[in-house]
Amino acid sequence: MDVERRILSHNDDLAAALRDRFARHGVFVVNLVSGPGSGKTELLQRTMSDLRPHLRVAAVTGDLATENDAARLAESGAPARQILTGTMCHLEADMVAAAIDDWDLDEVEVLFIENVGNLVCPTGFDLGEDLRVLLVATTEGEDKPLKYPTLTMSSQLAIISKCDLADAVECDVELLERNIEEVRPGTPVLRTSARSGEGVDEWVELIRERFATKTAATAG
Amino acid sequence: MDVERRILSHNDDLAAALRDRFARHGVFVVNLVSGPGSGKTELLQRTMSDLRPHLRVAAVTGDLATENDAARLAESGAPARQILTGTMCHLEADMVAAAIDDWDLDEVEVLFIENVGNLVCPTGFDLGEDLRVLLVATTEGEDKPLKYPTLTMSSQLAIISKCDLADAVECDVELLERNIEEVRPGTPVLRTSARSGEGVDEWVELIRERFATKTAATAG
Repeated sequence: MDVERRILSHNDDLAAALRDRFARHGVFVVNLVSGPGSGKTELLQRTMSDLRPHLRVAAVTGDLATENDAARLAESGAPARQILTGTMCHLEADMVAAAIDDWDLDEVEVLFIENVGNLVCPTGFDLGEDLRVLLVATTEGEDKPLKYPTLTMSSQLAIISKCDLADAVECDVELLERNIEEVRPGTPVLRTSARSGEGVDEWVELIRERFATKTAATAG
Repeated sequence: MDVERRILSHNDDLAAALRDRFARHGVFVVNLVSGPGSGKTELLQRTMSDLRPHLRVAAVTGDLATENDAARLAESGAPARQILTGTMCHLEADMVAAAIDDWDLDEVEVLFIENVGNLVCPTGFDLGEDLRVLLVATTEGEDKPLKYPTLTMSSQLAIISKCDLADAVECDVELLERNIEEVRPGTPVLRTSARSGEGVDEWVELIRERFATKTAATAG
């Protein structure tokens, strides 16, 4: 436990430095967390395309192996970089810092960090983000927030993804929402489908508002 | 890394002791690993019900929180015990040993261990099992074996679950099979659906054969 605490405390220091750096350059940062296959990359592709006419967006994406996600995200035309974690089950602040080390952050307004697909381990690792967003897909079952409460509790927003499949997989979306509310009361929840477009406008608008709020606060 | 190696080595010692104990009592042990929401519990419910007329089965199931899975598995009438891991992202050999400490293993012929839903962290943790089975659901996408190669490589059998949903979620099951083959050539793959029953007989038959083989080897 002492080792774990030391690792987390070291990460917290690095995350604080990252957060300062993001604030200096006016970058709004979103950390997307979820289990494997919840549709983070597909939603992010659509989100980045829709945001690009309004804001300069970029992404870093973590995976044990394959560069597939960065390649998919780069299709939006925005900068996207893959972080290969090897056997590591989550992203840490130093990996994010290294990935963006040579980027000119004055050219970035919104940075998305797509975490490794894992509903447990990203919990304790602050990446300097402004907003941590939990994705739960309708295909995963309604009980996931209850079974993985630590990550749910550490997220300030929840997105229910793949809502177009809810009927096919017999997911009770309202029960899923109630389970999020039970674990973390007051958490805003968006229902989305990257395929049908449901909820994407609302999600894009939310990011634009949060970016504007951060910029106004930093300028003031 | 030294700490990690020491933890794994300690676990290996405990797993070896568990494996000896299982062998002495003629228990065949299956460790089921997968991401969250792949349908481990639902498949296991059906598997245990179908096996019960032939073999004495039992299960231990790991989760951070909630006793739901053990309750669902106990519906089959077989002994089932929940291991609550708290913030821990995988099962370790000592947790399994503690969970079955008061069980008379002469009353058990097949023990299922349902791991925490996590496609990374269970990799290095031997639980004394005879067979490690990776579940990947059609709803997770075809790329999961490539993106989570360490757990795929450590499993001796793969089950593609939720095959009844393949069309609805546009999963190319053959591509998913090829991706498993690419990461771990020669891995046997079963296509299943706990809902429709597809592949369940084959899976149940496979366990009966493996149990018989182990019993014959131990007796010989």
